[in-house]
Amino acid sequence: MKRIEVIQNVLEANETIANRNQQLLDRHKIFTINIMSAPGAGKTSLILQTLTRLKNRLNVAVIEGDVASTVDAEKVQGEAKAVVQINTGKMPESCSLMAAMIESALKDMPLENIDLILIENVGNLICPAEFALGEHKRVVISSLPEGDDKPIKYPLIFVDADAVIINKMDLLPYVDFDIAAFRRSITGLNPEVKVFQLSCKTGEGVERWCSWILEQVETNATKR
Amino acid sequence: MKRIEVIQNVLEANETIANRNQQLLDRHKIFTINIMSAPGAGKTSLILQTLTRLKNRLNVAVIEGDVASTVDAEKVQGEAKAVVQINTGKMPESCSLMAAMIESALKDMPLENIDLILIENVGNLICPAEFALGEHKRVVISSLPEGDDKPIKYPLIFVDADAVIINKMDLLPYVDFDIAAFRRSITGLNPEVKVFQLSCKTGEGVERWCSWILEQVETNATKR
Repeated sequence: MKRIEVIQNVLEANETIANRNQQLLDRHKIFTINIMSAPGAGKTSLILQTLTRLKNRLNVAVIEGDVASTVDAEKVQGEAKAVVQINTGKMPESCSLMAAMIESALKDMPLENIDLILIENVGNLICPAEFALGEHKRVVISSLPEGDDKPIKYPLIFVDADAVIINKMDLLPYVDFDIAAFRRSITGLNPEVKVFQLSCKTGEGVERWCSWILEQVETNATKR
Repeated sequence: MKRIEVIQNVLEANETIANRNQQLLDRHKIFTINIMSAPGAGKTSLILQTLTRLKNRLNVAVIEGDVASTVDAEKVQGEAKAVVQINTGKMPESCSLMAAMIESALKDMPLENIDLILIENVGNLICPAEFALGEHKRVVISSLPEGDDKPIKYPLIFVDADAVIINKMDLLPYVDFDIAAFRRSITGLNPEVKVFQLSCKTGEGVERWCSWILEQVETNATKR
C-alpha cells in the first residue's frame, strides 16, 4: 500500500505548512476564510458581494484558486486590496489548493496592510475537504440547483465547515430543493455549523453574512 | 519529485486496467458511457430519463460512483437491468472512479445480458478527466446555473469529451448563461464534440440524446 502512505505523507506535510501559515497570519492580525464549493455554486459572486460591503471597513485581500484561467482574479481585481491567482494545473495538485500554495501567495501580499483574506478554493466538494491551508474559518457554499442531497453525498466537507451558505435563493420557485431537509442533513453532520441563506444575484441575505465576518474578525483580534 | 512519480505510476496502472476492461466489454458486445459532471449537474436525472426511453430497446445496466451514500443507486434500481454502487470513500481514490473499481463492478454484473452500461462518475470536474475506465464514450454534463465559464476553468474534462450536454435548459430565463459563448468555448477546445441542449426536468431534448446513444451502440456493434 505504498501509494496510500505517500498520500499520508503529503497530508502531514500539508498540515505542518498550514500551521506555519496560520502563525504568520496571526502575527499580522489577518483573519482568513477558506471558501469551498462545487463548480459554479457562487464563490466568486460571494467574494464580490462581500468586497462591495466590507471594503470601506476592512482591508480585504483575495487569493483565487483555479485549475486554469485567471477569469475570477480579473473579476475581483479593483475591488480587493490585493489579489493573487494560483493555478493548480495538473493532478495531483489540481483538485485543491494546498498550504504550500498559500505560503507562496502570502509572500506576494502586503501583509502589514491586510485585515482579512478571502481564499477562493478550486471548485470541488471532495479534495479541498482534506487540505488545511492555515485558514481561521472554513465555509462551504451549496446552491439550490445542485439539489438538497449534497451533504449526504459529500459529507466530509460539511463535517469540518464553520459555516454553510445556501446560495441562489432567488431560484427557489424554479427548482426542487427542500431547505428544511438540507438543514437537517448538515446539522446532523455538524451541529455547531452556522447557516446562511442568501442570493448573490439579488444581494438578499448577504448583509447577515457580512455581519458574521465582522464579528469573527473582531473576536479573533480580541483573542490575541 | 517522488510524489509525482507515484501518481504517474497510478495513472499508468489505471490505463492498463482500463484497456483490459474495454476488451472484456467488447467481448460481450457491451457499449459503455462514462458520464461526468460537477455535483448536482444532473447525472442521475439524465440516467433516469435515458433508462425510461431505452429500457424497452436495450438491456441497460448502471454503475453508480459516489464518495458516500447509495441514494443514486436506489433511484435507478428498478429501472435498470443491473445496478452496482461504488463508494470511493477517502482520498486519493475518493475524487474519481478508477478502472480497477469498474473491473470489480463488472464481476458483479450479468454481462451476457447487457447491451449498454451507463457509468455515473463521482461529481467532480477535475479528477475524472484523468482516469480512463474502459468506456467507449466520455460525456460531460454542464448545467445552466453553473455558468458558461466552466470550459475555461476546467478545460481538460472538455478536451477529452465525446459529447457535452447542456442540462437544465428550463432555467434559461432565470440565470445568466450565454449558450453561444459556451458552445464557442467547448468547440474551441474540442472541435469534434457533439453538443446536446436538454432539460432532464421537462424531458425536452432528451429524445435526441437517446437517438445518439442508439446510433453509437449500433455503429459499435457493426465495427466488431
